[in-house]
Amino acid sequence: MSCPLPVPLTGIVPPLCTPLTHEGEIDTAGLRALAQRLVRAGARALFALGSSGETAYLSDVQRDTVLRTVVEAADGEVPVLAGVIDMTTPRVLDQARRAVDAGADALVATAPFYTRTHPVEVAGHFRRIRAAVPLPLFAYDIPVAVHHKLAAATVLELAEDGTLAGLKDSSGDDGALRRLLVSLRQRGLLERFSVLTGSELAVDGALLAGAHGVVPGLGNLDPDGYARLYAHARAGRWREAAEEQDRLAALFALTDVGPEDTMGRNSSAIGAFKAGLRLLGVIDCAATAPPQVPLDATAVKRVGALLEEAGLL
Amino acid sequence: MSCPLPVPLTGIVPPLCTPLTHEGEIDTAGLRALAQRLVRAGARALFALGSSGETAYLSDVQRDTVLRTVVEAADGEVPVLAGVIDMTTPRVLDQARRAVDAGADALVATAPFYTRTHPVEVAGHFRRIRAAVPLPLFAYDIPVAVHHKLAAATVLELAEDGTLAGLKDSSGDDGALRRLLVSLRQRGLLERFSVLTGSELAVDGALLAGAHGVVPGLGNLDPDGYARLYAHARAGRWREAAEEQDRLAALFALTDVGPEDTMGRNSSAIGAFKAGLRLLGVIDCAATAPPQVPLDATAVKRVGALLEEAGLL
Amino acid sequence: MSCPLPVPLTGIVPPLCTPLTHEGEIDTAGLRALAQRLVRAGARALFALGSSGETAYLSDVQRDTVLRTVVEAADGEVPVLAGVIDMTTPRVLDQARRAVDAGADALVATAPFYTRTHPVEVAGHFRRIRAAVPLPLFAYDIPVAVHHKLAAATVLELAEDGTLAGLKDSSGDDGALRRLLVSLRQRGLLERFSVLTGSELAVDGALLAGAHGVVPGLGNLDPDGYARLYAHARAGRWREAAEEQDRLAALFALTDVGPEDTMGRNSSAIGAFKAGLRLLGVIDCAATAPPQVPLDATAVKRVGALLEEAGLL
Amino acid sequence: MSCPLPVPLTGIVPPLCTPLTHEGEIDTAGLRALAQRLVRAGARALFALGSSGETAYLSDVQRDTVLRTVVEAADGEVPVLAGVIDMTTPRVLDQARRAVDAGADALVATAPFYTRTHPVEVAGHFRRIRAAVPLPLFAYDIPVAVHHKLAAATVLELAEDGTLAGLKDSSGDDGALRRLLVSLRQRGLLERFSVLTGSELAVDGALLAGAHGVVPGLGNLDPDGYARLYAHARAGRWREAAEEQDRLAALFALTDVGPEDTMGRNSSAIGAFKAGLRLLGVIDCAATAPPQVPLDATAVKRVGALLEEAGLL
Repeated sequence: MSCPLPVPLTGIVPPLCTPLTHEGEIDTAGLRALAQRLVRAGARALFALGSSGETAYLSDVQRDTVLRTVVEAADGEVPVLAGVIDMTTPRVLDQARRAVDAGADALVATAPFYTRTHPVEVAGHFRRIRAAVPLPLFAYDIPVAVHHKLAAATVLELAEDGTLAGLKDSSGDDGALRRLLVSLRQRGLLERFSVLTGSELAVDGALLAGAHGVVPGLGNLDPDGYARLYAHARAGRWREAAEEQDRLAALFALTDVGPEDTMGRNSSAIGAFKAGLRLLGVIDCAATAPPQVPLDATAVKRVGALLEEAGLL
Repeated sequence: MSCPLPVPLTGIVPPLCTPLTHEGEIDTAGLRALAQRLVRAGARALFALGSSGETAYLSDVQRDTVLRTVVEAADGEVPVLAGVIDMTTPRVLDQARRAVDAGADALVATAPFYTRTHPVEVAGHFRRIRAAVPLPLFAYDIPVAVHHKLAAATVLELAEDGTLAGLKDSSGDDGALRRLLVSLRQRGLLERFSVLTGSELAVDGALLAGAHGVVPGLGNLDPDGYARLYAHARAGRWREAAEEQDRLAALFALTDVGPEDTMGRNSSAIGAFKAGLRLLGVIDCAATAPPQVPLDATAVKRVGALLEEAGLL
Repeated sequence: MSCPLPVPLTGIVPPLCTPLTHEGEIDTAGLRALAQRLVRAGARALFALGSSGETAYLSDVQRDTVLRTVVEAADGEVPVLAGVIDMTTPRVLDQARRAVDAGADALVATAPFYTRTHPVEVAGHFRRIRAAVPLPLFAYDIPVAVHHKLAAATVLELAEDGTLAGLKDSSGDDGALRRLLVSLRQRGLLERFSVLTGSELAVDGALLAGAHGVVPGLGNLDPDGYARLYAHARAGRWREAAEEQDRLAALFALTDVGPEDTMGRNSSAIGAFKAGLRLLGVIDCAATAPPQVPLDATAVKRVGALLEEAGLL
Repeated sequence: MSCPLPVPLTGIVPPLCTPLTHEGEIDTAGLRALAQRLVRAGARALFALGSSGETAYLSDVQRDTVLRTVVEAADGEVPVLAGVIDMTTPRVLDQARRAVDAGADALVATAPFYTRTHPVEVAGHFRRIRAAVPLPLFAYDIPVAVHHKLAAATVLELAEDGTLAGLKDSSGDDGALRRLLVSLRQRGLLERFSVLTGSELAVDGALLAGAHGVVPGLGNLDPDGYARLYAHARAGRWREAAEEQDRLAALFALTDVGPEDTMGRNSSAIGAFKAGLRLLGVIDCAATAPPQVPLDATAVKRVGALLEEAGLL
């Protein structure tokens, strides 16, 4: 049921939420339903075990269950990218081997975190992963989690020597992204190195700048919106792309429904995505993993109102 | 020689470099030549005493000289925005009064820095400035200097109650900018509140998102490039806008010509802008203010090469 | 009325609060009373225009008034150190020249802020100040305000070549301070280079580690406590020193009396110091400079209770 | 072979390095030798799988091996604390259960990292761990790794309700530590809540302030030095304690032997500890885990010189 990764990978690659039961176990039925919904909406690949998938909150056994379920649901129709998120190289290698066993088509790894790591060591980290595991490798640039930004020089070096198949850029630094895209183009690397933006609120601009695709957390709720945005952009209908993006940016307000004085921004965003999926009938239970605080009734009501405003309910 | 500020202010608003003599004094002839060059290239307003203008390195007397020179050079053809950059409200008020005396048409102030300031206090800061000085006021969101980001709620509140005439967003956070633009539009404020991006490498995306204009440091060197970019965008020629932006992003590599082990990034960027202006014949001396380290000959040569690649030399 | 600086400077060097009138002007009578109280309590020098003195909130004219008032009150009995806080070298030089005119006996300058500055440039910054102004110069290491820490190598280099007469360390990094003290001792510099800690809650440990003195904001309220702490430490009564420090650490809770949801930590701390000085009868008005939010009645009451617990009221 | 944890735990609790073979496997003989050396030197407990133990770089299987080896070597003479370092509650619970199986006597957990977590959620995190695992639990406050500091209010709350048995404070914020110690004493909690400092360069000051003990990475190399420091402090010989600390602070220079342009500070410090252990004949191989860059010959030579200066070689 594997599916080779297009080179370069383009289009909408949603980072799947991970539905949980009230007991905190993986809701495999809900996850399958979500995966199939996203494929039907035109996702070019599925990204399991990313930040939107609460990967930081899942045990290794749960991660395996998630990945096997998504691979099965994708059914060879689209490739499955697997987040292999852990602190340093040896631990990421363990995650990577499990992901291979579970049927992943490509891997997505961050730079080391928790430790203080030199750019030379960051490059070595990705090289060791690529050498050890026979799957295309994406670098995941997410300073909000990892607390340092991938150096452009490192990305270019690893793109050039074939270590990396692509980049998922969740840095939110669109100026740096533009310079990277220009450098990749100057070196003739854009044909084989995929740049996917995780900045789900400026997708029109990122596509205009030459990014290949987008990994939108909000795409769990409105995959059709992102599919339309992408289609408009590819057809050169930039004004229509921007309008679609504006609608999605307004909907994104749901990530802030949780009160700031009692819960983290992670919990608010993930809680809102899941509350929305439940309201849309995709999943049965909106539970998030501990220690995240659940949304209260007022917040859930606000999610519903925003889904209505966006025309989804 | 004053010039009323268009409402909203749109287009290219270059933040002028401040040419200095070898003795460290303001080169008023060079500054005048630069200002006139930018107006000729289609600048809709001039922004004096911003970060590109080394305002943090200029004494109060020098700031006055800069502002008077730019106001005189603008000659009432375009409005002059003046940075009034200081640590907290009382000191900014002193800067603001001097700027009024020197003939500024509008003021640009950051949130307090050096101190730890609550959002409630940040709002009070802008309100006091606006109440004390009879000029339109722009908020300057520049976390890299001020070390916190302006809260969207604060900007919306101050846009709604008329405290602020606009925002210069140098946060580089294009997702947050998109959400702000959507919120301003929902409240009907985009007709009177100007949003100018300082992210000079993603101007096409920012204009597509609805920003009114751009304040590009690189516009000191290539004002025609930004003028073309803006014209393409306004005419809906987004592909051409993106190509122009790509060329400018490649040119931006000149900000990194200074070696990282012996000089700061500020010095490298400002030094490169000034070295370029000298190579282009706009100014006579590329000196930067202390304690900035000057570019070495290798770096200056690289600036020249990049100007050539960009078709400017 | 000048007073030569002891080499090295030792003991308690309180950073004076700046009393303000209800109209926001300098309350020179209150400031004089405060200065005299501190000298009577055994201060070895007075530090005017530091962070506790709201220097970031004072205009240049107000800074002059403060410094002249403190110099006059010190009356040649103890030296007066003057903060010369501004963004970069040229602006600090202006502050320094004014401080010389106002009668300062030594200067205290931070590294550049607002800008991004390389360690090489930071060293050049202090060298230029020292070269231009004929007064002993202290480096003020305050990362919470300046957003980078002075490199130990820079401090050692500037201590060795005589640029700096000392360091005021408000970094709170006592491990780094210990390594610096050991390095200074190894180079034989502790006889002429003063190390003053601004970490007012770990003074016993800092003196045990070899620091020469302390610059305690809380010393505005309880100068006798810090004098006793210092005397105990110099006499080797470390247990008694620690008990005094414990009492002062408990009193320090007054810096947190302001509610976190409506005011900054700066405003809370400075407001509490001033409310305490008013309750102690040293000054008449506890106003703080804008845009700081004033303490409410509940907070002021809590200040009083803490002063009582500490035996000061 | 278990050993009950003293209440409160006091004294030297070294965080063991993890010797590795050239092939990257756990060198159990070396680890046993190290553990026994530390117990002989008077360690009151052993801390396995902390930052000095490269826990972030070890696979789960390797972590098990480390912990079983240390428990076996401790042989019931001293308790073994086990780091259970992972991103969030569910993953830490897995680590905790494995640590119980391997024979740990107490657990040491950080706040969640990689995710953005609210203080309310941080408290819930520790409560869930304590509820699920029948071992005393220490909070590990290490902002340099986790990127936020544990709030004092959270620690006090969890000390008071019995969730936490103690704190390992590697924040380096000795002012905050002093306030915490004063608050714990005011509530009568210091008899049952252990405060261990990880600031190995200011141990004299921390003990003077009331801390119960210390967790010094440098104690791997010089356990006798820390034992003497602790004995001096407990006997009130503060001057002698400070001199011992000064010697250890000078030795700490070995953490900086690795060149900054080619390796991370983690790699330099851990590499130096291990190079030193090899020079001292405790272990056979100084390898560090990938992606850490190994020390070059010059750096290793410098380690030797520093060990000689400190009288250890």
